[in-house]
This record gives sequence, C-alpha cells and structure tokens, in this order.
Amino acid sequence: MAGLLLSSAAFSQTWIWYPGDYEIWLGNEMNNRRTERGAFFPPFWKSDSHYAIVEFSKQLDLAQPEEIIIAAEGKYNVKLDGKLQFGMPKTMIIPAGKHSLNIKVWNQATPPTIYVKGHTINSDNSWKVTFEDKEWIDESGKASDTSATVYMDAGSWNFNDAASLPSQFTLARQPMQPIAVIDKADGKVYDFGKETFGYLVLEGLQGVGHVDIYYGESLEEALDKGYCETLDKIAINANTITDLALDETSPRNSSYTLSNSKAYRYVYVVPQPGVNVNQVSMQYEYLPLTYRGSFRCNDEELNKIWDIGAYTMHLTSREFFIDGIKRDRWVWSGDAIQSYLMNYYLFFDNESVKRTIWLLRGKDPVTSHTNTIMDYTFFWFLSIYDYYLYSGDSQFVKQIYPRMQTMMDYVLGRTNKDGMVEGMTGDWVFVDWADGYLDKKGELAFEQVLLCKSLETMALCADITGEKTDAGKYNQLAKNLFAKLEPAFWSNEKQALVHNRVNGQQSDAVTRYANMFATFFNYLNPEKQQIIKNSVLLNDSILGITTPYMRFYELEALCALGEHDAVMKEMKAYWGGMLNEGATSFWEKYNPEEKGEQHLAMYGRPYGKSLCHAWGASPIYLLGKYYLGVQPTAPGYQTYDIMPTLGGLKWMEGTVPTPFGEVYLFMDRKTIKVKSSGGVGTLYIPTRQGRKAVTIEPDKEYKFNYPVK
Amino acid sequence: MAGLLLSSAAFSQTWIWYPGDYEIWLGNEMNNRRTERGAFFPPFWKSDSHYAIVEFSKQLDLAQPEEIIIAAEGKYNVKLDGKLQFGMPKTMIIPAGKHSLNIKVWNQATPPTIYVKGHTINSDNSWKVTFEDKEWIDESGKASDTSATVYMDAGSWNFNDAASLPSQFTLARQPMQPIAVIDKADGKVYDFGKETFGYLVLEGLQGVGHVDIYYGESLEEALDKGYCETLDKIAINANTITDLALDETSPRNSSYTLSNSKAYRYVYVVPQPGVNVNQVSMQYEYLPLTYRGSFRCNDEELNKIWDIGAYTMHLTSREFFIDGIKRDRWVWSGDAIQSYLMNYYLFFDNESVKRTIWLLRGKDPVTSHTNTIMDYTFFWFLSIYDYYLYSGDSQFVKQIYPRMQTMMDYVLGRTNKDGMVEGMTGDWVFVDWADGYLDKKGELAFEQVLLCKSLETMALCADITGEKTDAGKYNQLAKNLFAKLEPAFWSNEKQALVHNRVNGQQSDAVTRYANMFATFFNYLNPEKQQIIKNSVLLNDSILGITTPYMRFYELEALCALGEHDAVMKEMKAYWGGMLNEGATSFWEKYNPEEKGEQHLAMYGRPYGKSLCHAWGASPIYLLGKYYLGVQPTAPGYQTYDIMPTLGGLKWMEGTVPTPFGEVYLFMDRKTIKVKSSGGVGTLYIPTRQGRKAVTIEPDKEYKFNYPVK
Repeated sequence: MAGLLLSSAAFSQTWIWYPGDYEIWLGNEMNNRRTERGAFFPPFWKSDSHYAIVEFSKQLDLAQPEEIIIAAEGKYNVKLDGKLQFGMPKTMIIPAGKHSLNIKVWNQATPPTIYVKGHTINSDNSWKVTFEDKEWIDESGKASDTSATVYMDAGSWNFNDAASLPSQFTLARQPMQPIAVIDKADGKVYDFGKETFGYLVLEGLQGVGHVDIYYGESLEEALDKGYCETLDKIAINANTITDLALDETSPRNSSYTLSNSKAYRYVYVVPQPGVNVNQVSMQYEYLPLTYRGSFRCNDEELNKIWDIGAYTMHLTSREFFIDGIKRDRWVWSGDAIQSYLMNYYLFFDNESVKRTIWLLRGKDPVTSHTNTIMDYTFFWFLSIYDYYLYSGDSQFVKQIYPRMQTMMDYVLGRTNKDGMVEGMTGDWVFVDWADGYLDKKGELAFEQVLLCKSLETMALCADITGEKTDAGKYNQLAKNLFAKLEPAFWSNEKQALVHNRVNGQQSDAVTRYANMFATFFNYLNPEKQQIIKNSVLLNDSILGITTPYMRFYELEALCALGEHDAVMKEMKAYWGGMLNEGATSFWEKYNPEEKGEQHLAMYGRPYGKSLCHAWGASPIYLLGKYYLGVQPTAPGYQTYDIMPTLGGLKWMEGTVPTPFGEVYLFMDRKTIKVKSSGGVGTLYIPTRQGRKAVTIEPDKEYKFNYPVK
Repeated sequence: MAGLLLSSAAFSQTWIWYPGDYEIWLGNEMNNRRTERGAFFPPFWKSDSHYAIVEFSKQLDLAQPEEIIIAAEGKYNVKLDGKLQFGMPKTMIIPAGKHSLNIKVWNQATPPTIYVKGHTINSDNSWKVTFEDKEWIDESGKASDTSATVYMDAGSWNFNDAASLPSQFTLARQPMQPIAVIDKADGKVYDFGKETFGYLVLEGLQGVGHVDIYYGESLEEALDKGYCETLDKIAINANTITDLALDETSPRNSSYTLSNSKAYRYVYVVPQPGVNVNQVSMQYEYLPLTYRGSFRCNDEELNKIWDIGAYTMHLTSREFFIDGIKRDRWVWSGDAIQSYLMNYYLFFDNESVKRTIWLLRGKDPVTSHTNTIMDYTFFWFLSIYDYYLYSGDSQFVKQIYPRMQTMMDYVLGRTNKDGMVEGMTGDWVFVDWADGYLDKKGELAFEQVLLCKSLETMALCADITGEKTDAGKYNQLAKNLFAKLEPAFWSNEKQALVHNRVNGQQSDAVTRYANMFATFFNYLNPEKQQIIKNSVLLNDSILGITTPYMRFYELEALCALGEHDAVMKEMKAYWGGMLNEGATSFWEKYNPEEKGEQHLAMYGRPYGKSLCHAWGASPIYLLGKYYLGVQPTAPGYQTYDIMPTLGGLKWMEGTVPTPFGEVYLFMDRKTIKVKSSGGVGTLYIPTRQGRKAVTIEPDKEYKFNYPVK
C-alpha cells in the first residue's frame, strides 16, 4: 500500500531517465534564472550535466506477442535480443517468450529519456539504465561478458503521456491583476497586494522607445531605480520588441509578456516619453501542489502565521525547493533540508524532495562541499535520513547511495588526525548569518555534531542498500567520532559545548548551534540537555539568533525539551513581529531591534534581503510536529507517534499528511479527537502523572477526554 | 620560435573554451555518427560532457582606454572589476589602468565559448578558465577569499573570426563523380574508383517511392543487400524526402544529399519501381591538412605504399584520428597513438593530436580503462610522451596533467600486491586481434611493460608541470616495477619474455608483443635484444602478427635492431600484398594466407573488416623515422638525429616536418644531401667503420659523399 503511493510504478507507463539526470538538467535551468539588475547570475559552484548517452533495458517474458510504441528524447536505437533494428522504430512487435529489449539514446542538450507503452511492456522505474554498457565483441563477433556493466533503476516523475516530454516541462500559470496603481511623475507603480512571482505583462503598448521596469518586494525597493535588486528593460520598435537583458527579440504585439519571471509585490513601470503602457498585469507561476497539512486554533495571529508560512513555502516550492524567490532563486542544501521538513507537514510531495536531493548532489567527481559549504554537505546527508523516515522510500536510497559514498569519501579525505573536520582551502564554513562574530577556525563543535549524524546516516543507508561491510565501517566511524565529542567540546566551566577547538585547545566562546543540535540528536544525556537549556538556549547573554534558519533548530530544540509554551510565545513574537512589519511572506532574516528600511537591507545592499525565504516558514513544521505532535517512528509512517500539546492555546485542529493519507487531530483543554488513514499510531494522552499511550488504528474515529492538570 | 608555431597565442584573438571541453563535445558528435545497417550505433563506454558553466578571466593593464567586442556561445554575463554589467554586452569600453575582466557563460547543448577582440585585449589561451569560481560573499557583502578557485589556461583551435562559431564547425567538402557505372536488374552500382568518404548525392529524382542504397568498400559488399555493413533508405514523397534511418524529413528537390556521411568505393542504388534516379555523385568530406612529409625512391611499389598510406591517413584524420572510416568511425586510443606517430611524419598537425588525446581521456571520474581497454589506457599515457617529444608543447602537458593523475590513480587502484595489472571485472585486455589463442589471464608481460612506460611518462609530465613530489613518486613506482619485469617474465629456457604469469607462475607461451616493446623501450640489454630478435622476432614458430596494428611495433622493433633490409622486404611483401589484392587504402587486418572474399570478413560478418584503417598506414612512419631516419632527441626538435638508411633502395628523398619547418633529405649509394629549417640536427654519415656524426645547422644546404661498404 505504501509502495503504491510512493512509487511511479503505480502508473502503467511513464517517461524514464538515468536517475538524477533529469533533475540535474532541470536544476541548471532553474539555477540559471537568477539575475542581478539585469545581469545573468549563475551559481559559483560546479554545475553538472546529464549522461549524454544512456541505455535503457528490460527483460521480458511475454505470454502473447505484443505491440509497443516507443518514444524518446534524443537519437536512439533499439536492440531486441542483441539485434539492432533499422532506424529509430516508433512501433515494434515483440514475439511471445523471453526477450531482452534495449534502447540506447544520445542527447547532449537535454537528458536522454524514453517512453514505451504496450499491453504489459511499459516504461517505469523497474527498467534498468546504464551510461556505459561495455558490450565488447571479439574478432569472431562473439559478445563479451557484460557483467561489468553497472545498472541502476530508472528515474521518473509524473510524465505519464507520450506527449508530455520531460524536457518541455513548465510550471503552471494563472493571470493576476494589481490591486492598486500609484501614479509617479515618470510612470506608475503597480501593487499586486502581496509577495508574488511570475511574468509581468505589459498591455496596450503604443509608440516606440524603451520601457524600464523596476521590481520591489517592498515599495521602497521598486521606487529605487538605482538600487532595486531586479529590473528589466525592453525596447519597443516598429515591428519588434526586445528584452534587452536577455537579448531576445520577438514580433511586436499590443501585449508583451516578459520571458524571465521575477519576484515582487510592487512593480514600477517607467516608459520613455513617446511610449505608452495602458495596463499591467502578471502571469503568476507556481508548482501545482495539494495543501494536505492544515492548522487552525483559537489564536488568529498564529493562524495567520501558519497561512503566511504555507504561502511562503508554496512560493519557494518550484521545480525545486529554492531559498528565496527574488534572490538567490538557487537550490541550497541547508535551506532545502528545512523545506523538506516543512513539506512533510504541508504537501508531502516526495518528488520535490527527491529532485532537490539529486540536484544538490550532482555528479562525481566531488570537487567541493555541497554549494561549497561544509555544513551544507552534512545537511544533505541528514536530509536523506529524514526523507527515508518520512517516506519509507528505499528505492531512492539505493539509487543515491553510490553518490552518498563518493560525497562521504570527499569528506573523510578532509578530516584531521582526530577524524574531525576543519575548514580547509575552498571550504565555506557557514553556520549562520549572525549579528556578531562567529569564529570559523579549527574544529567547530557544530560541524562535528553534523558529521557524526552524517556518518550514522551513511551506516543506515548502507544497510538499506545491502552494503553490510560499508554499514559496519560507517557505524564504527560514527562511534569513534561520537566518543570524542564531549571530551573535545564540553566545558564544565561553561556548562555547555564550546563553539570550537583550535589546535586542540577549547575556545572560550559558547554559541547556540552545537548545543541545539546535540539536544535534538540526543547526543547529550537528559541531565546535560536540561543544563544547556538554561546555560545556553534560554540564556540571553549567548549571541542571539536572527535568522529564521537557525531559529528553526533553536525552537525545535526547545520543543524537544518540552518548552512548548515558551516556543509558542517566541513564534508569536518573532513571526508575529514580521507580520506587524507588513510581511506577506516570511523573510530571510529578521532582527526585531531593527527599524524601517533596515529590515530591507542585507549583504551591504539596501534591498539585498529576501522577503520571501523558505527558511522563514518553519512554524508549519513546528506546529505539525510538536503541537499537533505527529511524527513517524518507523520508515514511511508504518508506525508513528501523536503527542499533542496545546502550548498555551485553547484549542487547535489540523491534519498531518502521511504516505497513507492524513492524520486528523483536534484538541482542546479537555478532549482529543483523532482519525488516521494508515500505519499504526500511538497517541499519548495527557494524564495527571504524564502521558498514557493509546494505539490508533487506521480509519477509526477516536475521541478521548483527558484531565486538566 | 617553436612557441610561435605551437601556440594559438600566435593569433591576435581566437575563440576559447575550457581545455578539453570542445574536444569532448565534438568527439561525441563524431563517435555518434557510426551506423550499422541503418541503426544508430553509439560507443559502449562513458561519453562525457563539457562543463555547462565556465568563467573566463583576464587581468588587464591598459595604457589607454580600449573598446572591446564580446561574443559568446551561450548565455553570459560580464564583470569588470567584480561589477556585473547589465545584460549581455556586445561591446564595452575598458578604462586605462589595471582591471579584472570576467565573462561567465552557460551552455548545456554546446560548450561555453567566448571571443573577445580589442586593440590589446584579445581572447587567447593566456586567458584563465574555471568551472567553479567559489565567489562567496558574506552577509555584509564582502567577497570571500577566492584562492580556492582552480584556474586553467583556456583551450582553443583555429576559430579566429568572430563569425567562426566553434559549435558550427564542419569539415571541408568537394564534389566527386563516379568513374564507372554498372547496370544491375534493379538498380545501378556506382564506382568512385577508390575508397572514399562523404555524402551521397542523388540527382534527377523522379516519381514517388523508396530508394535503397547499399554501400560497399568492395563490390561484393555493395551488391550484398542482406549483409553490407552500411545502407540507407530514403522515401520520396510528393513534397518531401525522408531519410528513414535518421527519421529526418526535408522539402523535396530534384537533388538530394544524404545527411550522414559513409565510407565506400562502390554504391548500389536501388530505386523502387516508379522512382527514377538520373545521376549519382558524392560530396567528398575531409579535414584540410598540408602534406608536409614526403617520400620518393627508386622503388615504385614502395612509392605507391607511401601514397596509399598517406591517403589512408588523410581519410582517417578527421575531426579526430579515428580507427576506420566505415567502421567504427570511433576514436580508439591504441589506434590513435599510431595515427599521431604517422602524423608527425606526414601532417605534423598538433591540433588533431591534442583534440584526440582530450577526447580519449574525457572527464573524471574514471570509470573504466580508455575505451574500456587496459592496454589503451597505457597507450594514452605514452601518446602524451610522444607528443611532447615531437612538439615540445609544455602548455598542453600542464593542461592535461590533472587528468593524467586521475587516470593513473584509477590504474594504481587496480594493481596487485606486486604493483602489476591483471584483467579485472570490466577490463578488456586486448593486445591484438590474433589468428590464434592469446591468453588474457593473470599478469601479461605486455601490459606490465606498457604500465612501466606509463609511469615513466607520469614522472616526466609531473616534472614539466612543476609537481616535483609527484615526479619522485612516479619515478619510484616505475623503478619498482621495472626491477620486477625480468625476474617475472624472462625465461632462460625460452630465451625470451614469456607471455604471462598466472598466480606467480610463468606460462609456457611466448608471444611477440612484450618482446617487441621491451626492445624499442630499451628495457632489455643489447645482448638480450639480439637474443630475442632471433628467438622471437625472426622466429616463424612464434604466433605471427596479422594486423598492421601490431606489425607497426614489430617492424619498429626490427628497425631499432638494425634490420632495415628485412623490414623493407616485409613492407613490400605485406603492404604490397594488399596492393596486389586491389587495395586503394590499407586494411584493418591482412593475412596473406587468406583468399578472395576471406579478406573482407571479420567479426563473424562477411564484410565486417574495415578496408580503410588508420593503423594500416604505418610505412609512413617507418620510412620517415627509420629510413629517412629523422627523429627528435629533445622536445620539439630543439635537437634531432638524422640516421639515413637505404635498406636496399638505390636512392630515396623526402621531407620530415618539424615545428620549425621541414628536414629535407636525399640519399643514394654515394651521397647524402640535407637541408633543415630549425633545431640542431646531428647527421650520422655511414663510414667504413660505422657512422660519423656531423652537426646540421638550420637553413644551410649540406652535401656529403660517403664510402660504399
């Protein structure tokens, strides 16, 4: 049942490719749409390519002869039982009996893909793929032993019709109108009412000359021609219109839709004298996703936080989970792992998770950390652990395991004599954007904690893949490192893990990062966890966190320590604070100390900050996991816990998606109602003494009363 | 001077790219043109891709402001001193003073390339390129230290005009007519008089229906519809013509040129009833190359061997040096190293050598031996040694050294406890096509000899690249292996190196391969070399060689041992034998014992053999190196030897190309005339006692008399 929901094999046929290849290609398309003031702005890390030649194969055993249709993106050949067929056959009759069917495709520009449809023969991810078939023949024409060929299960998504070419994929669009127009001396500002994303449409164009377009996530930004982050310039000629940034010319019509999408709420349109723009609208662009998670409670501010969080998530859930829609529009591993986690409580769209994980990994050889950032490499490993836990998808783990190995080889090749990582040439040790000094030298406790968890993930995935020797190796490495963590970083004086160790010497600095992660990884005993709650997490003298990114983990750690009431207050203060500043989506960074336009600035630029950043949406995750309290305890929600906690609310209700459907929960100060559609749940009902476990079976409605403490 | 001739920097500006990337892309285009009876037949090894995003950079120091024009293949941006420019500028003014100019290009379908032209600013291979610039900025907007970025010198060829887009490169064409037409019941055979290559042209097309086209390197093949190796089928409709193999439809004209080139002498054109083909011609396709080497002597058969060899070389010297023009039309390392060596005595076209070496290496990670063949990996290393010796091009060695390292890492990762290679899963141990059993098990002496020379090449190239530690490492590995060769493989009983050792036990078999290579590598002392000359090389009981491929090395070994008269006889017998069979180009394999159509068969197919195979052309090399006797003794012919030997001829004259021009030589039984245009030559004049060395300075005409022995 879970398998049916998880796997593309549920469809009778679908376009298939070498796993990861379509994702890497589509990711290049996505990552290369970033612009900065009209200049193309590609990533600064290695961009990989799909395999240009891929062979697809399937072993057949037919009771009856069968006709198949074959479609491919690329130049291809077809071999039946080793015999090449003339040309590029579009249909074929396969005789009854056992046969080998091989299709080999070459495509440099877009990934080699195929689609095969017959009565029982259908392309799906049970087909095998290879990029190197090693099919030698000897002088007498005898084929060599091809046991050397490495096959993988094919990759797929949802391109289930012959006409749905994967390379032609686009997101959905919907026309949207501005809600207000503000007149300026040389043009007009169009207000779309909230943060949005898509293609600007200029209508009723008259005259000849330029039109300049300045986009703003804020009104200030749109009006600041010299410093707004994104802009467009178009030249209207007698018969053509040219997008000057992209150097693209199209025939002139009275309406013109820009071909690069942008993020904005406000757009300042400035036609040259002699040019008239009658009307401005937009094509909103989005990935069609179902909102399967939900949350409502008695607190309207919290409801709004959830709604704006969900909208922020939807805006940033596109071809891939990106960081922000104005900037960078890139896929970043540390950002993505949070999107995945929010996704499990909102869309539960596995395909988006898998696409993003493939893209972030790219191809061998590994030449740098993921996105060049050491911590982001570790978040990439951790995200596979999370994905497997939530989805139960072992096929994906098997497909990606070889690239996990080579990524870990890279990491292990850069450890010191203690098996710890230190920033080396080319490593960006990021941790967080902090309003204060963060030492990046030597062994950071934060990085070692993440490395240790990454090694545990390797052991788990090696085990799933059937690589028992590897599993043992990684387990041992994880244990060795784990044994060194406390001796290296715990300070009795500070009653906390210190920030780093340089040349074997603990530093004086204590930061929140390692202490937070050690807590919810259960790397410290319960006593020490309670100690750092007070010495670090709730201690205002420790450098505060001003990004929703690290706030995610800080609040998660406090929830794990049972501080739901405190976290609820923090959520309302912090995300409520953004709402009070007029946010219509959540930001990259928010420091309540700042005022006015200070909120817009970052990276030394007045509008450098992204006002719609995926990592801003974490209440989605916290409310689902720690208030509704639903989380898997075995892969794919075969078993799961429900530990509902009001955290000061009067009532709440909501749904959490699972591979089986949804878990519905209502709770007020006296009753709990639960209904689930699969897996074996354990509801922990509050009692006067603590909690009492009750088994929740699928498809039954439960109602429990519980005593007020 | 040498530098000027070698380097594209001699041109004021040229299109540039990431070194190897254009070559890999163009190689995929080439390797994917093979067909087998109308089916697309791509390689079975991993095909790599160019880097999709490349940054080009140049540090400038301008006395005057300067306008530049910029062209690129791909979407690009331009940064001047770190500041992104709007759009994709086609011209720019660079102010006087010191500046950094960076151009970043994205192109998935074809390699990112640029062309910059100004007064002093010109794109050439002094520009730096990277695929990963690691240009982080921190939260305050400060750029990170980018010392982590790895830069390479840019690659280029001869695209020196802005309009000569590298991705649009095609070979030259020339119309050719058949010399005879043979009527058949259902069609006509067109005879082009000799082996040729290009696009068939059907003229005066009338009617509607199919035309079937059967190509033959021999008349037998063209006439055998069921077994000829290549064929085409076209469908002529009322308004269109479709190439059925390629599934390409074009508007109907009275003349139709096929869009895939083929190799043939004979073409059998069979129109369906109702279709008429009035005339057939072809577009001969070739790489424009200058015949700088030449050879003439009193023996007309030898002159014809040289001419047919040169033609065979020209037919197979295309975008790359390929194996054969009918089949495989692929780039194979063992074949290519011989093409390079012949090229040094014919065209001396360094660009073709470099292109082919880049393509054969591809990209990391290394997942198999070159072309999957163990020996071909070693020939790849050796070819770089040869190229450096003939050309003196150290820039190329520096560019390719990192990929030599990863290739050697792959090899060393597959050595046994004795540091020797044995065939492992996925390794094709080829050696040669032999008319007899060749054992491929265990440690083959042949493979160890090649590995040892490869390690010596690594040491040399590490040294050129300035990697002194690497040089020491590889030298030591080479010495260790060298010390083991004789103990492992020399048999006093056999008076030869045995073929292989299995589980530490010498086998009984003696083959020519290792003994030949050990001879001209000077891996055995002169005494042992003379021993194996008789015990192996001139011993008819040792399995004979029937490919011109290994005959190349066999005859080279005999020349190295001074057996010029015997080799001359062999050349005339073997290559003359092919001429007597009607060869108009030299073959993949020739066994004088075979008769008639046996000569056409190979790989279990009646016309499987290639009748135009590069490795068939080796007399070009032997005559230049061992009879005219010219060879470099220092990189790039800074010094060189001339050791002319008539080998039984009455007289000979010819030229050998060098980076400086040519060495001209005439010799009869009394006099030697020499003229050279650069480098310091040493002519060894025969005396009654042996040879006498005379220095040959450039641009002087020398004439010497010498005594008849």
